[in-house]
Amino acid sequence: MTKTMSRATRRASQSVTIQTVAERAGVSAMTVSNVLNNRHNVRATTREAVIAAARELGYMPNLAARSLASAATIRIGLFSRNLDSGFLSSILSGALEETSESGAQLVMRRFEAPKLDELIASAEALRATGIGAIISPPPYCELISDHCAPGAFPLPLVAISPGDELPGIPGVRIDDRAAAREMTAYLISLGHTRIGFIRIGSRLHADKTRYEGYRDALTNAGIIAQPEMVASANLTYESGLAAANELLAISPRPTAIFASNDEIAAAIVSVAHRMGIDIPGQLSVAGFDDGPLALKIWPTLTTIRQPVTQIAAMAARRAIGIVTSGEVDPQVTYLDHQLIIRESTARPGE
Amino acid sequence: MTKTMSRATRRASQSVTIQTVAERAGVSAMTVSNVLNNRHNVRATTREAVIAAARELGYMPNLAARSLASAATIRIGLFSRNLDSGFLSSILSGALEETSESGAQLVMRRFEAPKLDELIASAEALRATGIGAIISPPPYCELISDHCAPGAFPLPLVAISPGDELPGIPGVRIDDRAAAREMTAYLISLGHTRIGFIRIGSRLHADKTRYEGYRDALTNAGIIAQPEMVASANLTYESGLAAANELLAISPRPTAIFASNDEIAAAIVSVAHRMGIDIPGQLSVAGFDDGPLALKIWPTLTTIRQPVTQIAAMAARRAIGIVTSGEVDPQVTYLDHQLIIRESTARPGE
Repeated sequence: MTKTMSRATRRASQSVTIQTVAERAGVSAMTVSNVLNNRHNVRATTREAVIAAARELGYMPNLAARSLASAATIRIGLFSRNLDSGFLSSILSGALEETSESGAQLVMRRFEAPKLDELIASAEALRATGIGAIISPPPYCELISDHCAPGAFPLPLVAISPGDELPGIPGVRIDDRAAAREMTAYLISLGHTRIGFIRIGSRLHADKTRYEGYRDALTNAGIIAQPEMVASANLTYESGLAAANELLAISPRPTAIFASNDEIAAAIVSVAHRMGIDIPGQLSVAGFDDGPLALKIWPTLTTIRQPVTQIAAMAARRAIGIVTSGEVDPQVTYLDHQLIIRESTARPGE
Repeated sequence: MTKTMSRATRRASQSVTIQTVAERAGVSAMTVSNVLNNRHNVRATTREAVIAAARELGYMPNLAARSLASAATIRIGLFSRNLDSGFLSSILSGALEETSESGAQLVMRRFEAPKLDELIASAEALRATGIGAIISPPPYCELISDHCAPGAFPLPLVAISPGDELPGIPGVRIDDRAAAREMTAYLISLGHTRIGFIRIGSRLHADKTRYEGYRDALTNAGIIAQPEMVASANLTYESGLAAANELLAISPRPTAIFASNDEIAAAIVSVAHRMGIDIPGQLSVAGFDDGPLALKIWPTLTTIRQPVTQIAAMAARRAIGIVTSGEVDPQVTYLDHQLIIRESTARPGE
């Protein structure tokens, strides 16, 4: 039955042109082309109408179109942490939006603190169920890059927002070092010289690249870095509370603190409120990511905007491309970051 | 080719027992049964091993097992708003976790402020691409229930956390009215009598049920409800800022404000900080949802915990059940809520 139908489809397609499909769907031939080539400037409903028309007419010109018409063919996996941060929910959202648009299936595996072996076993199991590629944010993409020989991981991997370039692994990211340099230079331009920095743990490449950006800006301004001005946390709000307490106990206190993510910056704001330290009057605070939290605390947070949803969508698109083409292009795609100035930063003593 | 293989599979399955599959996968027969019947007490990796073994041996006893082995057969849609709230990212996470576990495909459609026609057109387009059921949070599930004749919507619908029971539509929710009554009774038990309330807009059923819970508790305590103590917002933080300004301008001020969600409660906290009003000393603030935000503002937020991730996962499971069985059971499933007391509430004047 299946075989007969696919033969009929193949026959029919020879007499059907892209123009016929366009007429049936009530759109331009260009739109049909955009849909069938999986470009992203077409509305979901239009896309569906085109696919329905193409299927009805038996127009199946190439692999991309076939995969759009038969969603089962492309399945990609997402390795995720827990989702209590805006960063991770944006990743989920961007990836799911892209797979929904492309007719691919997204399968999520959530880990707490996995060892490499566990990630490899999970990828093998996913491969056995038809998954063709994996997208993953830090720390997993970085753990695999750091400890797994090239080609030894069971599935092609696309890194979502890795903190640095990962050799041989395609990725989509911003330039973390440049972004951190810009934020620090902005704080210096306000008149701050005692600028604290909170790192996010050595497992993460962004820990190093963002710290280097901070150091670059100090060096460029001729400010001598003071080791006690640098505290360590991990990615969580809770870890940020301890780091904030540490930096705010220094005498004289830093007049500004730049945290490597928004969660930690929000924790600094909480600790400062609790200690009666006025923000930004007595302390400027800056974050990194510009997740939803940045606008929902008081004062609103100066931060670096990272287009996480788009980064994840583009990573999913590249993973789908790997599955359809069978080829891995290890190029890293850079998206723009942005310095977002809000109420949590000001001149010192203002 | 496909036809031949499926015949071979069917033949093979007659000589293979559940015990054979269990031995191949290195698990108990009970575990195989749990996996093949889609029960949820099995780890993802174990599940995958069982499916791989069953497939290898050609053991395909029933529809559930076939659908697990061939993920293409079950596709469900998710109608979503934008994801800048913890509530919606939890929904996405719960739904994707469930479909990942079950081998089903989740397709997301995001809307801003859709009309019913647009939702119907989208459901029709999704049906044309093989989607078998839709899960949806408010306001979409409620918009469909309120304005679409029973059976007129193109696909079976499962409501995620609707604010009330929707006639004929399966749903998974907490008892919003009881939860709001408990929170208000808690504020009264602290000694508050001037208790403000912020509603979330008449499009949402939870606007009414949570307001009724607030009124119930006032009535039970013999407190006369004062209309000026009730302000209106929508679901967003931004709308909460205006409502908070309105309630905090009343003289004498309310000593407590209960907001219908955490975003609005966070907005009240911001406005109070800005006006120099001490929380909880001069004002107690309570929210609803217990999303990630509740722990990341200062002071931390007293709120109602709604198990949104589990609600969404259960809704996805029910949608998958509808697709596999072809039957819609319009029963509403209730999960427990919880009153979470943190730092934002205290006795008046404490």
